[in-house]
Amino acid sequence: MNNSFTIGGQIVDLVHSRIFSGVIVVEDGKISKIKEKAIGNAPYILPGFVDAHVHIESSMLVPSEFARLATCHGTVATVSDPHEIANVLGVKGVNYMISNGKKVPFKFFFGAPSCVPATAFETTGGTLDAKLVEKMLASPDIHYLSEMMNYPGVINGDPEIMAKIAAAKKYGKPIDGHAPMVTGEALQKYVGAGISTDHECFRQEGALEKISLGMKILIREGSAARNFEALIPLMASHPDKLMFCSDDKHPNELVKGHIDELVCRAIDLGYNVLDVLKAASLNAIQHYKLNVGLLQPGDDADFIVVDDLRHPIARQTYIKGEKVAENGVSNIKYEETDTPNYFERPYLYAQDIFVPDEGKKIKVIDCLDGQVITKCFTAEPKVVNGGIVSDVERDILKIVVVNRYQPYTPAVAFIKGFGLKRGALASSVAHDSHNLVAVGATDSDILHAINLLIEHTGGVTAYCSTEMMAVPLPVAGLMSNEDGYQVAAAYENVNALAKRLGSTLYAPFMTLAFMSLLVIPELKLSDQGLFDVKKFGFTSIYEDENTEMPAV
Amino acid sequence: MNNSFTIGGQIVDLVHSRIFSGVIVVEDGKISKIKEKAIGNAPYILPGFVDAHVHIESSMLVPSEFARLATCHGTVATVSDPHEIANVLGVKGVNYMISNGKKVPFKFFFGAPSCVPATAFETTGGTLDAKLVEKMLASPDIHYLSEMMNYPGVINGDPEIMAKIAAAKKYGKPIDGHAPMVTGEALQKYVGAGISTDHECFRQEGALEKISLGMKILIREGSAARNFEALIPLMASHPDKLMFCSDDKHPNELVKGHIDELVCRAIDLGYNVLDVLKAASLNAIQHYKLNVGLLQPGDDADFIVVDDLRHPIARQTYIKGEKVAENGVSNIKYEETDTPNYFERPYLYAQDIFVPDEGKKIKVIDCLDGQVITKCFTAEPKVVNGGIVSDVERDILKIVVVNRYQPYTPAVAFIKGFGLKRGALASSVAHDSHNLVAVGATDSDILHAINLLIEHTGGVTAYCSTEMMAVPLPVAGLMSNEDGYQVAAAYENVNALAKRLGSTLYAPFMTLAFMSLLVIPELKLSDQGLFDVKKFGFTSIYEDENTEMPAV
Repeated sequence: MNNSFTIGGQIVDLVHSRIFSGVIVVEDGKISKIKEKAIGNAPYILPGFVDAHVHIESSMLVPSEFARLATCHGTVATVSDPHEIANVLGVKGVNYMISNGKKVPFKFFFGAPSCVPATAFETTGGTLDAKLVEKMLASPDIHYLSEMMNYPGVINGDPEIMAKIAAAKKYGKPIDGHAPMVTGEALQKYVGAGISTDHECFRQEGALEKISLGMKILIREGSAARNFEALIPLMASHPDKLMFCSDDKHPNELVKGHIDELVCRAIDLGYNVLDVLKAASLNAIQHYKLNVGLLQPGDDADFIVVDDLRHPIARQTYIKGEKVAENGVSNIKYEETDTPNYFERPYLYAQDIFVPDEGKKIKVIDCLDGQVITKCFTAEPKVVNGGIVSDVERDILKIVVVNRYQPYTPAVAFIKGFGLKRGALASSVAHDSHNLVAVGATDSDILHAINLLIEHTGGVTAYCSTEMMAVPLPVAGLMSNEDGYQVAAAYENVNALAKRLGSTLYAPFMTLAFMSLLVIPELKLSDQGLFDVKKFGFTSIYEDENTEMPAV
Repeated sequence: MNNSFTIGGQIVDLVHSRIFSGVIVVEDGKISKIKEKAIGNAPYILPGFVDAHVHIESSMLVPSEFARLATCHGTVATVSDPHEIANVLGVKGVNYMISNGKKVPFKFFFGAPSCVPATAFETTGGTLDAKLVEKMLASPDIHYLSEMMNYPGVINGDPEIMAKIAAAKKYGKPIDGHAPMVTGEALQKYVGAGISTDHECFRQEGALEKISLGMKILIREGSAARNFEALIPLMASHPDKLMFCSDDKHPNELVKGHIDELVCRAIDLGYNVLDVLKAASLNAIQHYKLNVGLLQPGDDADFIVVDDLRHPIARQTYIKGEKVAENGVSNIKYEETDTPNYFERPYLYAQDIFVPDEGKKIKVIDCLDGQVITKCFTAEPKVVNGGIVSDVERDILKIVVVNRYQPYTPAVAFIKGFGLKRGALASSVAHDSHNLVAVGATDSDILHAINLLIEHTGGVTAYCSTEMMAVPLPVAGLMSNEDGYQVAAAYENVNALAKRLGSTLYAPFMTLAFMSLLVIPELKLSDQGLFDVKKFGFTSIYEDENTEMPAV
């Protein structure tokens, strides 16, 4: 491969905040020289975009396919937390991501997941204790300690947590934060521990407090959480403290755009173009000390070519001097990959999800469209033959979480908000432990949807009596090993079926995947049982004397 | 139920070819009186529409659901040949159709299928010999001998065939024809045997010859064959010889329209409104002596109410005085039904569809979009590991027909025209024996698609590595027992997936279903082997000295 050439244009030098006409000489994938020279009517050359925090797994694509889609949007690098696969496969999963990522000319910077498992109240396939995390951080393939979600642990000086933080410091690697709604003294302790970023802000006030304590803020806009609109005004006051990230980006949305979308939106809102471009590349590159080129002599030749600086959609994307994408088509080839998984689940039967009526009201999870938090209330159950079943009329449906690592009895609860009129949905993407989660209009539908999932050892499924669909995700039950564009189309299709079954949610499978996320209030369902996040402990599905929920 | 009321309007009396203003008195579902009376600005009341030849099974709906959808389009009756289910289940299948149809207020007139099996070169689940056919014809629930496809048998006086015809005559029941391209002396013999209709004309000449011999012509416009445009000019010259029929109507198209569409199109073309309406009701009612009302005193109160006689879309549909549909919504309720089937097929393995390379060219079925006839040619095979496989580049794909009644070795051949780039399609709707038919880009895809079909004991499936869909048809592997609108949506969805897999055909599953229809030239595939229709016998898939096909 000959990565030596020259390219001329309006060079956007974010390091020195200037734009000049010139020629870049690329030799063996590196920039050997930049000559200022008048060039008429040439396109702009600027550093490629960086997603400063993204779980590749949420794209349902392996890294090599993620790269194919992302490079078309001018993305050249990601700071990536392999948290999801680590919950399934532990260190083996992290190593899979690293080695798969190396198959393609794209710059993945993986971190060591800091919180696997996320809580002690759920069952994961993998566990990363302080020793394993330290071992990972010692590797040159691990670039940071990622997403310290256990902020109570940090604030209270939990020894295991502090050992992980100490290990990151020992190897001089940055520590990423995750501190939604943490403020005041608690936040000071959290930042004082050495945590330097946060991507969980959804209001300017919180972000400003964090910035005042020295943190960098990642403006997140992905498939799950969307904070761009709330936080972009910070671009006027604190541009050097900002980066862009997607956190979770589903394949059908990654096909449409990536960091380039946020750049265009910010410029359209009137923010300074160079400030916006820095948030999309330089700020992340410098903060994480990423080996990504910034158009300086000696840098890797990582850059994009755009025609309109106010609408910087990549016409060409270069990584290490290799043209990896042009006009929306990637030159990266599809790569075969193996399919590591951890999936030990026998088929389910009716008695596994039977819920006896005890003559009491039941607690109901109240899910809110587009949000990962839930509310809760109590209601009279619908009882058939002594068992509590889904009530389509009142939209109080049975939800099931099934341990996929051991053959234990499923956890069953009830949820409002999905709106299914018939059929069932199931997914092996279920944060953070990625057990199996399903919701449905009847017990039979739920069993069919879960068993279809089990048959394919993971994926997302929609089942009803007139049709059934499965999108297999054989890599850890989280990712497909196939072409990204086809996966995107398949995911759109199963989503459409979910809506045809009556779901009124914007993204039914996404909401479903977060109903088992125990760290976000109020009422959630782990594979081990119904979980009251405020009390941070399990709770009965039946109303009892301790129940403090509105009755409906 | 009170089916006694009066209704006023512009009454369209097709029996006396007049339209008059009046009031119809309905008592107990029958018209007791019609009074001429001036009524200002009232809607039109006309006889309901009759589909003069339709295989209900092709709608993928059981009769009770077919009725729900059809009544919304002003259809009150069908002349229906239960040929498809008879091939699977014999007399038991026919009886299922009759008894299911009786559950709803719709007028089904079933016939005795005349040709089950259709040929001796395929395996069916059911057989109807002359004795059984005579027994059926003796029943008041059987109204005619349907679709005498075996015209060579009629012309040559085959005793079994002649016995079936004699039985129909004995009970005074009409005999339906099916004589594509039969002319001259042969046609005279065919008509002379007492066969009085034909729905296989696709040119005016053929139709005129049949009319001259006394036959009635059914203008067919369905999902499979579309002859309306070619034959509608006969409406000017021979209106009293014509009826409308759909023959095969898929659920997604039945949702959109039925005989009403043909009526509107014919009126739009300028043909006499009364002539067109007669072809849509009176002509069939009189020919088949159907107990369907024609707005005469004493008749059943079967009629529709329309606002615009030149665009007669039913605002209300009445059958025996019961308002069965209004404004596109049926009052017929969904009825539970059992799911009789004949499906004895173990899963398939790779060796079952392995085709050894013999160093020779292979014969290839050349399918044509929107047609049931095929062409053929010979080509060099693509060989991998000693076996002949699908060649996506040249669009020469493996096609498999699998006996679903006995566990015999599948028949395998090759076909051009499907255009699949990946994945496979499979169907248990496969004329006329309804074995399993599949086509695919790789052996593995084909096995998955067929095994998915076997898992659901029938239906249509599409399989690829990124997604899979199944539309189960548990009633004989031909029909769903579920809501017709949902079945229509499911069928649209699996069709869309087939196209996403690369198929360029208008209706890939329909074309697939006709590749095993041995009575239509040139090269077809039965469960027993590749079939040369011109020679009317089996042929090797390898080129041999007798091969008379163009080489490609």
